[in-house]
Amino acid sequence: MSLSKIDLANLAAAFDGGLDRFMVEWRELLAIKSISADPKYDSDCVACAAWLTHHLAKLGLSTELLETRTKPVVFAQYAPGYTKRSVLFYGHYDVQPVDPLELWHTPPFSPEFREGRIYARGAQDNKGQLFSFLKALEVLIQAGAPICNVKVLLEGEEECGSGGMRAALPEWLSKIAADLLMVCDTDMAAPGVPAVVMGLRGLLGCTVRLGGLKRDLHSGLHGGIAPNPALEIAKLAAGLHREDGSVAVPGFYDGLLSPTAKELVWLEALPFDPLRYKEEVGVNALGGEKGYAHKERLGFRPTLEVNGIHAGYDGPGLKTIIPANATLKLTARLAAGQEPQKTLDLILSHIRKHAPAYLQLEFSDLEVAGPAVRCDPDGPGVRIARKVLQEIFGVEPVFEWSGASIPVVAELAGLMREGALLVGFGQEDNNIHAPNENFSLDQFRNAFLYNALILQALEQSNSE
Amino acid sequence: MSLSKIDLANLAAAFDGGLDRFMVEWRELLAIKSISADPKYDSDCVACAAWLTHHLAKLGLSTELLETRTKPVVFAQYAPGYTKRSVLFYGHYDVQPVDPLELWHTPPFSPEFREGRIYARGAQDNKGQLFSFLKALEVLIQAGAPICNVKVLLEGEEECGSGGMRAALPEWLSKIAADLLMVCDTDMAAPGVPAVVMGLRGLLGCTVRLGGLKRDLHSGLHGGIAPNPALEIAKLAAGLHREDGSVAVPGFYDGLLSPTAKELVWLEALPFDPLRYKEEVGVNALGGEKGYAHKERLGFRPTLEVNGIHAGYDGPGLKTIIPANATLKLTARLAAGQEPQKTLDLILSHIRKHAPAYLQLEFSDLEVAGPAVRCDPDGPGVRIARKVLQEIFGVEPVFEWSGASIPVVAELAGLMREGALLVGFGQEDNNIHAPNENFSLDQFRNAFLYNALILQALEQSNSE
Repeated sequence: MSLSKIDLANLAAAFDGGLDRFMVEWRELLAIKSISADPKYDSDCVACAAWLTHHLAKLGLSTELLETRTKPVVFAQYAPGYTKRSVLFYGHYDVQPVDPLELWHTPPFSPEFREGRIYARGAQDNKGQLFSFLKALEVLIQAGAPICNVKVLLEGEEECGSGGMRAALPEWLSKIAADLLMVCDTDMAAPGVPAVVMGLRGLLGCTVRLGGLKRDLHSGLHGGIAPNPALEIAKLAAGLHREDGSVAVPGFYDGLLSPTAKELVWLEALPFDPLRYKEEVGVNALGGEKGYAHKERLGFRPTLEVNGIHAGYDGPGLKTIIPANATLKLTARLAAGQEPQKTLDLILSHIRKHAPAYLQLEFSDLEVAGPAVRCDPDGPGVRIARKVLQEIFGVEPVFEWSGASIPVVAELAGLMREGALLVGFGQEDNNIHAPNENFSLDQFRNAFLYNALILQALEQSNSE
Repeated sequence: MSLSKIDLANLAAAFDGGLDRFMVEWRELLAIKSISADPKYDSDCVACAAWLTHHLAKLGLSTELLETRTKPVVFAQYAPGYTKRSVLFYGHYDVQPVDPLELWHTPPFSPEFREGRIYARGAQDNKGQLFSFLKALEVLIQAGAPICNVKVLLEGEEECGSGGMRAALPEWLSKIAADLLMVCDTDMAAPGVPAVVMGLRGLLGCTVRLGGLKRDLHSGLHGGIAPNPALEIAKLAAGLHREDGSVAVPGFYDGLLSPTAKELVWLEALPFDPLRYKEEVGVNALGGEKGYAHKERLGFRPTLEVNGIHAGYDGPGLKTIIPANATLKLTARLAAGQEPQKTLDLILSHIRKHAPAYLQLEFSDLEVAGPAVRCDPDGPGVRIARKVLQEIFGVEPVFEWSGASIPVVAELAGLMREGALLVGFGQEDNNIHAPNENFSLDQFRNAFLYNALILQALEQSNSE
């Protein structure tokens, strides 16, 4: 091959040389309010897709905006012509809502750099991680380094279940076909310890509403004869789990795959310090399901979480009412073997069965984002990624089974010849989905170096 | 006696003649945002007390603004000189909060008259009812009608437990001493059926907060190992009642007095149409405690209601978080025999015992508003009031045991020689404590007529 590979030292120099410009561009991307959960920000999502399309075109990729029934998907290709190997890089440009807004130290869409970190909604999840890939790709293209064909797929609805993209996928099969799926939306095992993620949990969710009362009632004139939706929603929520922390929905665990013996060995080797975790999160003891180790609970056990419960008065002092209605927001993280639609149906049936007959029960926001993902630890992408990570960090990367979900990854991975490679550089203190989300310059640099090395290493292994 | 009594026909004519001016004044009173629960409206409460003091002085009463550690209390006296009999009229100028604001058809503090009703926060509870008394007193004073001595006590914290006034009461004993307490803050039995209220429930309340998590957590990265405050607050709320609807707090029912045989007979005679009630409120079946008749549940059984439960996300779509904290707002209606402070202590102990050790538990807004009230059905005020009500409505008034509370009434009644007389003209469709509170012109007129007749009748019975 006539093209010359760029080594780690030269990549680090390229990063340092480009950083001032990278930061200007990154701030532009982070300032766009691409919150997918709230229709109020629909036009911001479109603006974000347009910004990325324009940016990818400037990098030298052929670009295309793919319409879906919801948010547009950015698609771009780079085909240098000398290789047949290809990767599909997946990321998402949408971000989580920002409330509680009052807990942010600086406004979520006014990116601020302080103490080595950039603070903004999406700084890590996922704009920061995908931007690291774009900058690596830019440097490689400009230097004419030898890389495989690259397809880029950036969606705008990952935080809401990727419904629009999943519905459109069957029409894009030949367009997005590749050998390997690269996903950047994951974490390291600990600061300084890179991870190749071997599993993701699936995700589903719904909003439950109990109502029917024509108005809030006076608790004195009605207390003792009127039903209380606030109390009934609390009973419904409390009835979702057993005393031991397991999910009480009948059939919820049906079909669940246990970890293999090999996976259990790796799992036990993973670092987890309960004391440090409790300190970090601010609790006296851990929650969750009894009878399973912490890392197994996160990676191999499903959950059913109350994300919100709301009814009645929430102001200062007391208000003597019986609230007219109540809502419960639920999501479940699914483990391998659970069928998402079937599991959602079981949850809805359980709630229907236990909801009081005297109130109206309504479901909305029914989301089946996708099943769990489990990767092959012996796949070619995984082997190469471990070598690259070792070179950058100087330590052996670990295998992780993430508790998080990336809705469409299971489906996309199924379309690739070699499945998925999940390597990301998130850290616990990035506060994703929470106030003061951030991404450090160190994380940005490591993500850049990894992406620049892996794109070359995948091509090199191909031609070897 | 040389003064001449004004009869019903002449009172009705006086009402019709004065109505235009009454409405102007009433609108002024209703426009004052005297919400006692929210410190933001403290100066509005002071303005409301000042308006009333000024208005009472214009009517010819000697007035005084009594300071408390919280809201000022309006005190006024009218002593015509020819009688020793006296009544203390009690009302409150504070109102409930107005949320959910979006459900009001017109703004809560822009009183609007439509279809025979005036709509505003406080239109009935209690500004409308007390204003009816003021206008009756005005007409009687101007006409020189024979009435007993009248003391007026209007407080500004009834909706928040009357804490300031209760603390100050011991200093006012000689000032407020009277033969009979008149309370206007109650309802009719049904449209067209007046009621003399024989009992009120007591009231206490508190806010419970579960927290400790440093921030909202990502439900994927933490779900399965972090505790969930939203789920735990739901379990606490659900654990407050047994399956049969009774309160599960140990000792909650200790000391409770059952209705007497006589009271049970009256109770059974009271109109209650479950079908109509369900239609009115908008539910398929009734709630509350099993094993007791509806009217007994409202009048003689205590309750523990969830007035608010809040944790986590409440916006559109889903948000995959474990909320950092959760709050629960509770109030209990107490029946005769329950000691308020002891009952609150039992509730707090129960919650402390069942709260999860791994989260921080905090109590606030601890309110012990007062015990239940039970009146003597054979008292002199009650007998006279029944005759007056019969004259106005043409039907026999009924005895009611209200489920509502007026915190300070038990204490005030204990200071009177003849106890309390509770007659008010509220109706279910007045939406008190809820959006679109209203008071009809018919209710206003009947309340005016009652007050004008009873003040004369009490004096007449005295001189007979």
